[in-house]
Amino acid sequence: MTTANVLEKRGFTESDEFARKLDRLAEVAVRVGLGLAPRQQVVMTATLEQVPLARRITEHAYRAGASAVTTIFADEECALLRFHHAQDFSFDTAPAWLYDGMAAAYRGGAARLAIAGGNPALLAKEDPEKVSRLNRATSKAYRPALELITRQEINWTIVSGATPAWAAAVFPGLPQEQALERLWNAIFAITRIDKADPVSAWKEHDAHLHARADWLNEKRYAALHFRGPDTDLRVGLADEHLWDGGGSVARNGVYCIPNMPTEEVFTTPHKSRVDGHVTSTKPLSYQGTMIEGISVRFEAGRIVQAHASRGQHVLEQMIGTDEGARRLGEVSLVPHSSPIASSGLLFLNTLFDENAACHIALGQAYTMCMKDGEKLSREELAARGANESLIHVDWMIGSNRIDVDGISASGPEPLLRAGEWTWKV
Amino acid sequence: MTTANVLEKRGFTESDEFARKLDRLAEVAVRVGLGLAPRQQVVMTATLEQVPLARRITEHAYRAGASAVTTIFADEECALLRFHHAQDFSFDTAPAWLYDGMAAAYRGGAARLAIAGGNPALLAKEDPEKVSRLNRATSKAYRPALELITRQEINWTIVSGATPAWAAAVFPGLPQEQALERLWNAIFAITRIDKADPVSAWKEHDAHLHARADWLNEKRYAALHFRGPDTDLRVGLADEHLWDGGGSVARNGVYCIPNMPTEEVFTTPHKSRVDGHVTSTKPLSYQGTMIEGISVRFEAGRIVQAHASRGQHVLEQMIGTDEGARRLGEVSLVPHSSPIASSGLLFLNTLFDENAACHIALGQAYTMCMKDGEKLSREELAARGANESLIHVDWMIGSNRIDVDGISASGPEPLLRAGEWTWKV
Repeated sequence: MTTANVLEKRGFTESDEFARKLDRLAEVAVRVGLGLAPRQQVVMTATLEQVPLARRITEHAYRAGASAVTTIFADEECALLRFHHAQDFSFDTAPAWLYDGMAAAYRGGAARLAIAGGNPALLAKEDPEKVSRLNRATSKAYRPALELITRQEINWTIVSGATPAWAAAVFPGLPQEQALERLWNAIFAITRIDKADPVSAWKEHDAHLHARADWLNEKRYAALHFRGPDTDLRVGLADEHLWDGGGSVARNGVYCIPNMPTEEVFTTPHKSRVDGHVTSTKPLSYQGTMIEGISVRFEAGRIVQAHASRGQHVLEQMIGTDEGARRLGEVSLVPHSSPIASSGLLFLNTLFDENAACHIALGQAYTMCMKDGEKLSREELAARGANESLIHVDWMIGSNRIDVDGISASGPEPLLRAGEWTWKV
Repeated sequence: MTTANVLEKRGFTESDEFARKLDRLAEVAVRVGLGLAPRQQVVMTATLEQVPLARRITEHAYRAGASAVTTIFADEECALLRFHHAQDFSFDTAPAWLYDGMAAAYRGGAARLAIAGGNPALLAKEDPEKVSRLNRATSKAYRPALELITRQEINWTIVSGATPAWAAAVFPGLPQEQALERLWNAIFAITRIDKADPVSAWKEHDAHLHARADWLNEKRYAALHFRGPDTDLRVGLADEHLWDGGGSVARNGVYCIPNMPTEEVFTTPHKSRVDGHVTSTKPLSYQGTMIEGISVRFEAGRIVQAHASRGQHVLEQMIGTDEGARRLGEVSLVPHSSPIASSGLLFLNTLFDENAACHIALGQAYTMCMKDGEKLSREELAARGANESLIHVDWMIGSNRIDVDGISASGPEPLLRAGEWTWKV
């Protein structure tokens, strides 16, 4: 057998080409996404399936001057064992000590890197009431740490690695090895790892997103109007809202790009000025369960009717988390021609799917999407319309059949038509 | 091919017999070792190689009423990447936020389970000066959490699972699969998992260790005298010392057996009353490096001369950690006929090797081995001779050629001869 034959027999994830790309993804995550500064600690989270990527990231973080890299590995199998064997009270308990520890790390200057890519349907067969209670307990325990992230106190980023369960969900008809290869290749393409110089490609893309956000910031729209099949939604924007996109300087002075991929420009809606109805255009994978065919009616910012063709109970539990869970915390514009939509794939993973289409998020607003947001008190932020909640759940409302107008004092202006920007930057 | 043939072709660790024993080890660890109380959280630590045992323990912990089981998995590969790629300052950094988080969990009532069994020679080829600095930084960061454990504030236990690297170190001549099977079988035998009723076997053994400790407590020896080849050591015991062994009620009211296996009875030496010379009888695996042929001279409790035939530098770094690292914090008696010594194996893992032979520990003393120890201040404990240090490192000085006397006001009494107890309980 020749060497070539031996190589052919190896699966893609054992190939040298894969190893090179995985290493490059790790390098881009650390240097471009996280923008790691020397002597920072890194707090990484990942499932056990992500060990190969976590190792490559660990190496690049140390090479970039990390003082310590600590990965908290979650085991999906153990998560299922809990649902199958734990007593009822367990589902109201979360390890607050761990999340508080992470918050302490961030306050001490650590950077935060999450590897996403869990099984999108992990908890689909579990009791939705227990799923919801555990999500709520976890959200509550995680809140202090999450606030440091959403307030951009530190540099952070989320990247994804393919896993067998995720690949099987995206490519249900393919054998496991092929599904995994196709998902990895999609991730490499979408995160610009295939480019000759991924770092330059990311810098160019980042500049492009900033130009779009700047243009929207000059417009000072009072509202956006979404129209399409089963959708007619007016989203009032918060007073002194800011559009954001791509990377930004965190309050610790480090420039980071918090999502890889990212294709969106986004801002803060006014929590009391959203009216009309809207229908989801992609299924939502929400903490291990699927919610599909979401159809919601807003009045004065608040959801007054919510229906899902699948996952109705989980949707109700989600919007019942707290008062802010029924209101919007983010609105985001993405053209239908984004590389993710172009792939034609449904990733069942918010990091990817939200960057394939215009979307809205229920729950917590981002301080950085308000002028001088980091200097304002909670009361001042609320007075300007910024929403507060334990949750922040994005779901997709864009497609090539959606039109979006910007509403200013002088009337509506077309922003997107059939899912595409009406202007170039 | 018959079913029997198929089963024969499977490796031991994929067999049903192995699965049953692994599950029983997990059950005994949770119910007997940890003595888990309903509604306790569990903080587990393990390396990635221990995932199968960690999952079995997770299930049994939830079945026993755990409210949440959180496992912090360490990756030995990432530990090596740090040595190969991190900058110099990294070796003085430890994730204190994580250890402080664990301490908070213990203060909040969590139980602690550690799965031991790492590669005993993981860091053998790394720069000993960096190894030592990182150990010191880690010990310092871990101290608040460790103190809650050594003060028995909570129920805790350590169990072991076999791993390929550990098995290869114990059985260097065997193929990996065979080495792993032999190490697992040794662990199952030594932890009484092979018995028809492991829980009853443990209760009987525990009662036996308590009877020995009670007998020694009645004796009120002032000192122990170890004699053997290259050893003539008088170990003064702390004022108001207590002998302990087997399980005990932690201060949270839960009965636990902190080590599985455990064959020792142990107490607190007087930090200023140790004189003579002593030679190690087994190699010591110390945080990823090997120290062999330790030969040490004590004067008035303090090491004044220390030599190792291998690992001299690491030994020096270890005893240089702080002033207490040069003094004894524990002395422990184990008969040579213990199941571990009988196995004839050198495990290169302190949890096993310390239970095969009499041993001493440099560093921190155990409060529970002092009368009313938990009520005494640090100053009061020190006045009675209890040692304080960042480290607690056991090393073996017993063998079938060692005699031990107990020294009381009326003179010496024989305790062990040729490594065996001179009396039965």
